[in-house]
Amino acid sequence: MREIVTAALQMGSIQKADSRAAVVARMIALLEQAHEAGATFAVFPELTLTTFFPRWYMEAQSEVDQWFEREMPGRDTAVLFQRARDLNMAISLGYAELTPDGQHFNTSILTNRQGEIVGKYRKIHLPGHSEFDTERAFQHLEKRYFLPGDLGFGVWRNLGGIMGMLICNDRRWPEAYRMLGLQGVEMVTLGFNTPSVNSQQGDEGPQDRLFHHRLSCQSGAYQNSTWVVAVAKAGVEDDHPMIGGSLIIDPNGKIVAETQTEADEMIIHACDLDACNFGKSTIFDFKRHRRIEHYGLITERTGAVPPE
Amino acid sequence: MREIVTAALQMGSIQKADSRAAVVARMIALLEQAHEAGATFAVFPELTLTTFFPRWYMEAQSEVDQWFEREMPGRDTAVLFQRARDLNMAISLGYAELTPDGQHFNTSILTNRQGEIVGKYRKIHLPGHSEFDTERAFQHLEKRYFLPGDLGFGVWRNLGGIMGMLICNDRRWPEAYRMLGLQGVEMVTLGFNTPSVNSQQGDEGPQDRLFHHRLSCQSGAYQNSTWVVAVAKAGVEDDHPMIGGSLIIDPNGKIVAETQTEADEMIIHACDLDACNFGKSTIFDFKRHRRIEHYGLITERTGAVPPE
Repeated sequence: MREIVTAALQMGSIQKADSRAAVVARMIALLEQAHEAGATFAVFPELTLTTFFPRWYMEAQSEVDQWFEREMPGRDTAVLFQRARDLNMAISLGYAELTPDGQHFNTSILTNRQGEIVGKYRKIHLPGHSEFDTERAFQHLEKRYFLPGDLGFGVWRNLGGIMGMLICNDRRWPEAYRMLGLQGVEMVTLGFNTPSVNSQQGDEGPQDRLFHHRLSCQSGAYQNSTWVVAVAKAGVEDDHPMIGGSLIIDPNGKIVAETQTEADEMIIHACDLDACNFGKSTIFDFKRHRRIEHYGLITERTGAVPPE
Repeated sequence: MREIVTAALQMGSIQKADSRAAVVARMIALLEQAHEAGATFAVFPELTLTTFFPRWYMEAQSEVDQWFEREMPGRDTAVLFQRARDLNMAISLGYAELTPDGQHFNTSILTNRQGEIVGKYRKIHLPGHSEFDTERAFQHLEKRYFLPGDLGFGVWRNLGGIMGMLICNDRRWPEAYRMLGLQGVEMVTLGFNTPSVNSQQGDEGPQDRLFHHRLSCQSGAYQNSTWVVAVAKAGVEDDHPMIGGSLIIDPNGKIVAETQTEADEMIIHACDLDACNFGKSTIFDFKRHRRIEHYGLITERTGAVPPE
């Protein structure tokens, strides 16, 4: 047994007007609740510190940049890192990253139990669009505000296991999980902000959105024999609803814990990383079963090309 | 609308002692039932013509070869092709193929409505093992009796759409669906023979097996915006039970039809290929969203390599 008592710390809505300090206070309350329950690892969502700002069209770069962090930990987040260190807990956390040379990324970090950052991931599969789209019920401007991640898909040894990070839309892309699976990943953390309605198809509502979310996370877990901890920022942000459905999924693809609200909510599970071993050594023993000589198009071709 | 009224023709058990002629008679009865119901396309399972022989350990090649077809159509199957032609129906069918130069494959073919073979696929992801395994509750010797497919993952224009084939264990490998998705596939047919219990883990029974089966087929459909028609050979073959759960799945990953028995059974659905268009042009518009520069390991590395 290699158990990590893991807490998925779902965040409810954050309004545009909310301060970083107010958000961090909510995060610390959840972290303390997780510690009380015995967790040594706490996972926060994508873009935890602010409202999901890519729904707003902005032209002035100074307006955009107010949503980004120039340092991590920074002025508002130092107290969170300190509290995690005091509680001897590792954390994962998503935020908008502005680098010293002016690049913008949708980023997640992973710390050890000493509060040191041991891993960083920058979101690779950015959904949405880059210019104002009059056809949509609302905007989803991730391709405007972020660059695609430039760090690849990494894994890190932490808490006695092999950990990887994905962010939101990455979960719909089996290539993302597989890149981690090929590095032996045993736990994938994944934060998300998912609107409750498809902006381009109004009859695709929260039940469909939750179905696709669960399907993507459960298949990624099963097909790579890994734990998946998927954590929402949920609820209604300035009239824009987002799904909850934070999940802890075992290496068989089974959901072992799921949030019931769209508010700040903790779910927790003792995740035994050794539960990955059976799948990784039998049906998903990649070395015996994968046939890379037939996978060429996956890395040769970006878009689909129908036959003549 | 580009509708193909598609029938998944699940086959119940076939005992070792059953003749090809008896099996083909059952297939023709199902084909006629599908025609009566309005189908123009009928999908049969993997290794439709015989019992699932890879569960039996055989040393003599002459004994193995009795399960293979040297011609398709051949002596016993010509009548099936003739009936399909008479009914103006396209079919897909799995069988064990022995080539003139002595190679053995687990194969599926696709015909047009004139009964001409327009596509052939040889199973790439062979599960199981090649030598007698004393640790298993029963044998699964696909790696002994078949070579891995040598034709790659192909698609073919048929019935006004773009069709691809996978076989059984291929469905657990997202690379397989993606190879078809990158060629614009709109309907994937997939036959399977899946034991009701994991031979290496006795407490993994039919409900778990059906869960993994559905999860793999539904995620493949959703993530490639394609119909999936998955067809079982089911029931108890010489004391060895296999799951049913034949499925027709829409391009949103939703199950629109599922068999209720483990016997010969038809399910049918009018599959509109234009239902693929929304996903293929929005969230799964590969050209806009895939990032092949970060997928390198998928084709460079067969097995998983954990970090130092």
